[in-house]
This record gives sequence, C-alpha cells and structure tokens, in this order.
Amino acid sequence: MKDHLKVIGFDADDTLWLNEPNYKEAEQEFCSMLSNFAPAEKISKTLYDIEMKNLPLFGYGAKFFMLSLVETALKVSRNKIEPQKINDIIELGRKLLNKPVELLEGVEEVLKQLNSRYKLILVSKGDLFDQERKLEKSGLAKYFYHIEIMSNKEVANYSKMLQKLDINPSEFLMVGNSIRSDILPVLETGARAIHIPYHTVWQYEMLENTSPDNPRLTKLDKISDILNIL
Amino acid sequence: MKDHLKVIGFDADDTLWLNEPNYKEAEQEFCSMLSNFAPAEKISKTLYDIEMKNLPLFGYGAKFFMLSLVETALKVSRNKIEPQKINDIIELGRKLLNKPVELLEGVEEVLKQLNSRYKLILVSKGDLFDQERKLEKSGLAKYFYHIEIMSNKEVANYSKMLQKLDINPSEFLMVGNSIRSDILPVLETGARAIHIPYHTVWQYEMLENTSPDNPRLTKLDKISDILNIL
Repeated sequence: MKDHLKVIGFDADDTLWLNEPNYKEAEQEFCSMLSNFAPAEKISKTLYDIEMKNLPLFGYGAKFFMLSLVETALKVSRNKIEPQKINDIIELGRKLLNKPVELLEGVEEVLKQLNSRYKLILVSKGDLFDQERKLEKSGLAKYFYHIEIMSNKEVANYSKMLQKLDINPSEFLMVGNSIRSDILPVLETGARAIHIPYHTVWQYEMLENTSPDNPRLTKLDKISDILNIL
Repeated sequence: MKDHLKVIGFDADDTLWLNEPNYKEAEQEFCSMLSNFAPAEKISKTLYDIEMKNLPLFGYGAKFFMLSLVETALKVSRNKIEPQKINDIIELGRKLLNKPVELLEGVEEVLKQLNSRYKLILVSKGDLFDQERKLEKSGLAKYFYHIEIMSNKEVANYSKMLQKLDINPSEFLMVGNSIRSDILPVLETGARAIHIPYHTVWQYEMLENTSPDNPRLTKLDKISDILNIL
C-alpha cells in the first residue's frame, strides 16, 4: 500500500464528519409534517423520485434537497398543503445548513499523523458554499494542502484534478465511504482507494455499494485503521 | 498595461455571456404571478430583502434565487398563495437553469486572439454545478487553462487562487463587469483590472458600482476594446 504513495485524498461527508444522518433526520421530520397526507414510506419514495428528476439540473447539496422537499410536499398533498407548511420546510433546510459539524471518531488523529508524511487533499462534492462552510466549521482545513470540490465525482473530474496537481495516479490514494463516488472512479484512473463504509448511506450512493474485487482497493472498518497500514 | 502581463482572468456572467437579464425576466414573471397580492415594486423589494437574509447561509446562484422566490411568495401573499403557484415558481427556476447560453458580442474573437499570447483563466462565482453547465454550453472552455469557481469573490479567495497557480499579482489582469466582485478585490491583491460595465446589474453588485480611482484600473465600453490595448 505504501509504495510510491505521495498524496492521500479524503472524502468529507460521512468520511471525516457526520452528514447523511442529518439528512435522514430532516427527512423523518418532513414525513411527520405530511403524515395526514401519506405514510412516511410513500413520502420518502416520492422524495427520492423527485430528487432523481432534479439531480441532473440542480446538482447535489442542501439547496437541491430543500427544493426537492418543497416539490414533494406539493405532490404528496396534491397541492392541498397549507402554504405555511412550505415555510416550515424551508426552515427545516435552514436548520440543516446551520448544524454543527461533528467529526467522526479518530479523524483528527489520522489527519495529524498522515499530514507529516504525505500531502493530504480534501475531495468533496456538491454545494460549494455549504462544503466550504462545513470545512471551516470542522477546523480541519489546516491539514490539507489542497481542497477540491467537484460538482460530481466522476472519473473525468478525478483525472483532471490529478493532472492539475501534477500527481501520477500511482502516487494517489483516495479514502471514502461511497463506492460509487469515492472508489470506482478513482480505481478507474489507476490510483488506489480505501473504502470505509458508513452505517447510513443515501439511497443514490447505495446503488453500487458492493466493493469491487480490485488489488488496489482496501476495505477498512474505521478511519483509524489507516494508521496500521500506512 | 502590457508590462509583465502573463495571465488574464475573465468573469463569466454578464462579462462573457448574458445572465442578469434572464434573472430580471424571471423576476418580472414572478411579480406578474403575484400581482393580485402586491405591486411589482413591493414584491421586488421583499425579494431583495429575503435574498440578503439568505445569502450568508445559502450562497449565490439559481437555487438560492428559487428558494428566495418561494419565501417571497409566501411572505407577500401572507401565506394565501395557492400551493399550485409554488410549483409554477419552481418551474420558473427550472426554465432559468435550462436557458441557452448567449455569448456577448465579440467575446469569442477576444478569447481566441488573447489565448495565443496569454494564459487565460475563468473566474466565476456561485453555484458550481450551474456555472460548469453554462461553461460547457458556451463552448468557451477550450480557451481557458484553468477554471476557478469561487463561493464568493473576496480578496482572500483571489489571493489564494493566485498563490495556488503560482501567479504574481503583477502578472495578473482581471476583466469583469462588477466593481464589487471583479475589480475592488483584485486591485487589493495588487493586480490589474479592466471594468466593462453591463447594462443590467443585480442590485447587490450595484452597491459599489462606481469605478475607483486607481492607476491599475482601466474602464472599457465593450470587451473587443481589449484588443486595442493588449
């Protein structure tokens, strides 16, 4: 694993700090607000369908989520929702954006130790403004020599990033919780990856959530295990 | 103006392509939709106040605009708006995101000519996903060796960018239509700037819309005038 390794990329949401549980909590609160119109399960399904419709035009992030919630409320209630509740939904999104950043266990120690031996970069996706705020709140910015926020974690974007930073794929390792976003596209560039599953995963990321069989991929239970192999 | 110049940065919205008129048009349509609740002028004022409230939490861009429209509709109508109209408002935003990109006059010729003599970068702000889509639709990506999309065009972000790209401020020139975003922070880094006013300006950018008196600033009427001085 250590051979030629120079640069380590870390995913942010649910790799360095807790994220998806906050969204799941907001979704539950949203379902409760609409419980007189439909059961939670049906509301969640409608929300996911609307998210998938909006994703190609809106892109990921909290504002995409908020707009999708509003549309879902209108659809599930067949436009019978009281307008005041639309305000409550936007307030729900505002609360989500204002959440404190909760680091996952062991994260700071891992970054501190690896920082002296490798160049570390943060590779995150979604809403630029929201990601920058979370990074600032996290207090972790000082460990990274470069921050890359992509609109989408695709092979082409990883390749562009490596080229821009003059990193050979054989010198790069990516650490993340999503097979779809952090692992598969990185392996395709020829670089290495460490998959650290997280207990809560957005259904979209789940679509490809089985670890591929690849000698350049390592699966770990928790982030501090990295220190045993690097 | 030419001395030591190596890199030219171009703002995107309303410098390379038309943007603000599309927002103004959407706002007018929005005001018409709510005309039974309040006069257009009052609606626009409420929208601007809500935008200013949302900006620090949401950041710029089309989704920020859409969410602000929904909140404005609820406020102006005192929650009396028919829910169906909220759908129409989101549709208005969707139409805005789907607009074709209309290049301003002379832009492509300027980029083509300067591209052979200088390194060109695109320096834009706002919604990462939307800006990337507009750039792709514009067909201009091939002229730029680097694309920088900032959450906010502040001095610190310009300085970070110059440092990252190993550009000395004395080698850099920024071209843009907003005094607040493209000119003042760039002059403060010690670099040069060209201001090309655009006929439609968002009220927020207007706040500081008088050209400062600075020997490193040039004001031009249209982008093709750049070819006369470089």
